[in-house]
Amino acid sequence: MIFEKLKSVDEFNDFVKNIQEKKGYKNPLGFGIARVDRGQLDKTKILQANFPLINWQENFGSSAVFVAVLEKLGSHVDFSRSEFVCDIDKNFVQNALNLFAPFLDEAKGENHKNIQVLKHLQEKEDLSNFRLIFLFEDDEPQSVEAIYLKLYALSLGKAPLRSLNLNGAFGRLENVAWSYGKPIELEWLRKNEIELKLSGNYPLIEAVDKFPRFLQHIIPQDNTRILDTSKVRMGARLSAGTTVMPGASYINFNAGTTGSVMVEGRISSSAIVGDGSDVGGGASILGVLSGTNGNPVGIGKNTLLGANSVTGIPLGDGCIVDAGVAILEGTKLSIAKSQALLLNEVNSDLKLDVSEDISCLKAVKLSNINGAHFRQNSKTGTIEVYRSKREIKLNKDLHV
Amino acid sequence: MIFEKLKSVDEFNDFVKNIQEKKGYKNPLGFGIARVDRGQLDKTKILQANFPLINWQENFGSSAVFVAVLEKLGSHVDFSRSEFVCDIDKNFVQNALNLFAPFLDEAKGENHKNIQVLKHLQEKEDLSNFRLIFLFEDDEPQSVEAIYLKLYALSLGKAPLRSLNLNGAFGRLENVAWSYGKPIELEWLRKNEIELKLSGNYPLIEAVDKFPRFLQHIIPQDNTRILDTSKVRMGARLSAGTTVMPGASYINFNAGTTGSVMVEGRISSSAIVGDGSDVGGGASILGVLSGTNGNPVGIGKNTLLGANSVTGIPLGDGCIVDAGVAILEGTKLSIAKSQALLLNEVNSDLKLDVSEDISCLKAVKLSNINGAHFRQNSKTGTIEVYRSKREIKLNKDLHV
Amino acid sequence: MIFEKLKSVDEFNDFVKNIQEKKGYKNPLGFGIARVDRGQLDKTKILQANFPLINWQENFGSSAVFVAVLEKLGSHVDFSRSEFVCDIDKNFVQNALNLFAPFLDEAKGENHKNIQVLKHLQEKEDLSNFRLIFLFEDDEPQSVEAIYLKLYALSLGKAPLRSLNLNGAFGRLENVAWSYGKPIELEWLRKNEIELKLSGNYPLIEAVDKFPRFLQHIIPQDNTRILDTSKVRMGARLSAGTTVMPGASYINFNAGTTGSVMVEGRISSSAIVGDGSDVGGGASILGVLSGTNGNPVGIGKNTLLGANSVTGIPLGDGCIVDAGVAILEGTKLSIAKSQALLLNEVNSDLKLDVSEDISCLKAVKLSNINGAHFRQNSKTGTIEVYRSKREIKLNKDLHV
Repeated sequence: MIFEKLKSVDEFNDFVKNIQEKKGYKNPLGFGIARVDRGQLDKTKILQANFPLINWQENFGSSAVFVAVLEKLGSHVDFSRSEFVCDIDKNFVQNALNLFAPFLDEAKGENHKNIQVLKHLQEKEDLSNFRLIFLFEDDEPQSVEAIYLKLYALSLGKAPLRSLNLNGAFGRLENVAWSYGKPIELEWLRKNEIELKLSGNYPLIEAVDKFPRFLQHIIPQDNTRILDTSKVRMGARLSAGTTVMPGASYINFNAGTTGSVMVEGRISSSAIVGDGSDVGGGASILGVLSGTNGNPVGIGKNTLLGANSVTGIPLGDGCIVDAGVAILEGTKLSIAKSQALLLNEVNSDLKLDVSEDISCLKAVKLSNINGAHFRQNSKTGTIEVYRSKREIKLNKDLHV
Repeated sequence: MIFEKLKSVDEFNDFVKNIQEKKGYKNPLGFGIARVDRGQLDKTKILQANFPLINWQENFGSSAVFVAVLEKLGSHVDFSRSEFVCDIDKNFVQNALNLFAPFLDEAKGENHKNIQVLKHLQEKEDLSNFRLIFLFEDDEPQSVEAIYLKLYALSLGKAPLRSLNLNGAFGRLENVAWSYGKPIELEWLRKNEIELKLSGNYPLIEAVDKFPRFLQHIIPQDNTRILDTSKVRMGARLSAGTTVMPGASYINFNAGTTGSVMVEGRISSSAIVGDGSDVGGGASILGVLSGTNGNPVGIGKNTLLGANSVTGIPLGDGCIVDAGVAILEGTKLSIAKSQALLLNEVNSDLKLDVSEDISCLKAVKLSNINGAHFRQNSKTGTIEVYRSKREIKLNKDLHV
Repeated sequence: MIFEKLKSVDEFNDFVKNIQEKKGYKNPLGFGIARVDRGQLDKTKILQANFPLINWQENFGSSAVFVAVLEKLGSHVDFSRSEFVCDIDKNFVQNALNLFAPFLDEAKGENHKNIQVLKHLQEKEDLSNFRLIFLFEDDEPQSVEAIYLKLYALSLGKAPLRSLNLNGAFGRLENVAWSYGKPIELEWLRKNEIELKLSGNYPLIEAVDKFPRFLQHIIPQDNTRILDTSKVRMGARLSAGTTVMPGASYINFNAGTTGSVMVEGRISSSAIVGDGSDVGGGASILGVLSGTNGNPVGIGKNTLLGANSVTGIPLGDGCIVDAGVAILEGTKLSIAKSQALLLNEVNSDLKLDVSEDISCLKAVKLSNINGAHFRQNSKTGTIEVYRSKREIKLNKDLHV
């Protein structure tokens, strides 16, 4: 054993301080220990990383301990790189537990979860599928573990949507068959197809994708509902009180809600919907990956996107897009002068110039508008904008 | 043993008559024995009730027997309340079987299913998860068992859609993680997350919701198809010959079909669709919980809702809403006089007054109309109503 | 043993030639050995056929061997009928392996897969659920095995979509409950409902349908993604690079993609989408089973169907249908003369006659047009056709 058990919290604090003051030492942005699922054929391929918890700009004492143990055991943690990933073994676990000795008894429930993880690992014979990752900078992720750590940070609300660098994630993740939440290499299925099918053991496959599903990793809050697990990709964020119905809805990674929202439509990648809003059945919020020229679409609070409506511009609070109406960046909108004046009253950043012709305005110019009601006149076919008269309120019973 | 075995059907009938004539006795609206799933942490919480069969305004002899045994064993059944729920034990089962003795041999197949249930229970060591419920009045349900009994009655077609009081059901049901059809408390997942994830035993979760899915409890008729179990909530009713496709479709509880229907769109809570109708891909029938000011939408027979259409008013028979067209209560519709006269021919309750201007009629005024074709003129953008020329017929091959 | 082991490839070739030259002998269109799932109550009912591999206009030496063994064992293969299905036994397997003796050692990996199947079967005690099928003509299928063989041929891309006769398939397939990819008779569930529910063993049912799902049988290519298994029916074809999102998408049997396609909408039966195209969220391509008067809809390359658009006519390459726009066969379209001339430049088979009035053209007349942009003028509500200015390109990152 390299480290003896520390005897007091003071000793622990001194130890940590000592580590943190070393030249070049850096507190990580995030870190954690993951159980990884490896390729059936290629054991070096990481197909999924399962974090029992993640640390995100927090618990720097634990990261100092982890670094100290790694260094003593011969690993060199390079703080100049954006991330560091390594295997861990029994030796690592035991030494870290020795350093955490003053806290062992109180490590249960909500307390000292990193120590709880180590205590569980201590009981295991084989640690070959457990890996430790530090993220020092939010650069393009270099490992599957880093991608998962970021997806967890987004889904758990520890990092805001759109705030993390996920460039290249698609390229780094393996496309796998998901069977009961476990990833299987497609090539392994091919190599074993004859035997699996003849024996009746061909696995049930719920999806083939690079990303796992949100519910494989995240426990929603008590008043959050997801009626079909396939509807929410890992890396999405659902704030408390959000309901995701199973019709046409979908929430991609790096997209989601910041409050209690009824979701019956599509929230594409990078799209964010605010508290009290209602994404109606089949409504589409276009995403940066397709449809919006790269401008992410945000929807404010208490806004209603009607059934089968389409929104390609960001909207503010209290808007309504009528059922079946499509508002794209280039859609030309007609606003009566009187309505423009009413809209100006509830918009501080966006003032419509009523001295100009506003009977043919490109929708993108109304980006982030509050209190607007977009409708199609059923006599003339004109897409018109009004000051919304209705306050959008979610049915309270459905979001308790 | 309290009750000796009854020796003949006559003895049984006398026994039942005697019970039923007691003062204050009341035949129940519905009753049944359920196996309940309890909370993992809080065993007093009922998370789901599984009924092997329900009795709905039927089998009053069985309910009399159940009441008699309960009373003798010391329970007081209060007929003045809307429902009564209690545990049962071996003693209850054996005494009830003694009373049912004259029928024991013929209790198989379709006969005497309540007795079959008791015979199965007789074989079990532990009855702590079996509960008996009587529903005496259709009041607001006070228990999870009462809610499930009503959902079964709706889904089995024993009670018509919209006929039962489900007020407060959302508040009484627990929001749980569903794993292989079994409910798990979210708090239990949280408390065990570290161990479950590190051991690779984190459960596959198919949904997080208060309601279970229809197919967890109901066996559809032979010519009924549900291509994705997530698409139909428990409490929905699918009449024989209904097909539910997996695209954008969804059928909420207390909603469904009363005949052979092709469903590729959303049938929201309280919406009902008639025989021979076709809810096209992505079509939305708005529900009382959102979108219709509380007026439930019914769709008649042989009506076609085109792909991505939206209907917020009830429609009669033989209507067509063209693909992409949205008809809300306030949508202004244009009807030519000649078409109005043709429509009046097939509508006895709804007569359009052609002496008035009917070029700008609110859609809600056409509620329950028959034979109307709603389309958007692609030259002028006007939403127009015609007398439908087409008879809607489902592809027979798809509904055998 | 009827056949002794053949000693060389030459002997094998002579043997095969001899069989093939017999009067009336015919090479099959397709053939294969399937493990079948039988009814729980009615063992003669075939509920599903699982092919470890299928042969389609190939491996005629193997089919000759199979025919030779069958005939020697007393079966009469009637080449005048469209298909032949029979049980196989240990004797069949051993004799066939004797004839294949010269290849036994090299039958592994990608080589001699029919022999690999036999080698696996040789290890099994009970072959009562293994069946051999030959398809000699593409007539209406007479057996469940023939239907599955054709669905495999379509899904594996061995036969082009729309090329096979599947008439009557709906009538021949049993409607079953699918539980973990295994079919269960609905009647068996009914007969066992009481016991299953009381014991907590009621099976998880993912669907009730006549068809299985694509992913129960087919292993997609490495760059193909299906985010929800319910979204693709067996018999669909997904070319490499296709992504099927979980929102409102659905691909029916005998429909699919011929290149890299983003699918977020419905590809109905018989509809085919070309390389580089994008079926937007909730977009509907109508199918022959409903909506198109029986004309199958093909979509060319690099065509974009916007979110919630509807297409009822076939489109060529490089078209755009704007979000929310519905183009049915009878939709009247307006084309400016200048745009018509531009469209004529990129369409060799379809020339618009600009001397005629083209301000009110039925959409069906533009069937298979290239480079057209269908939009609704948001001032006038007119559905207009323009020469598309935009080249549709899929986000490369999403289809690696």
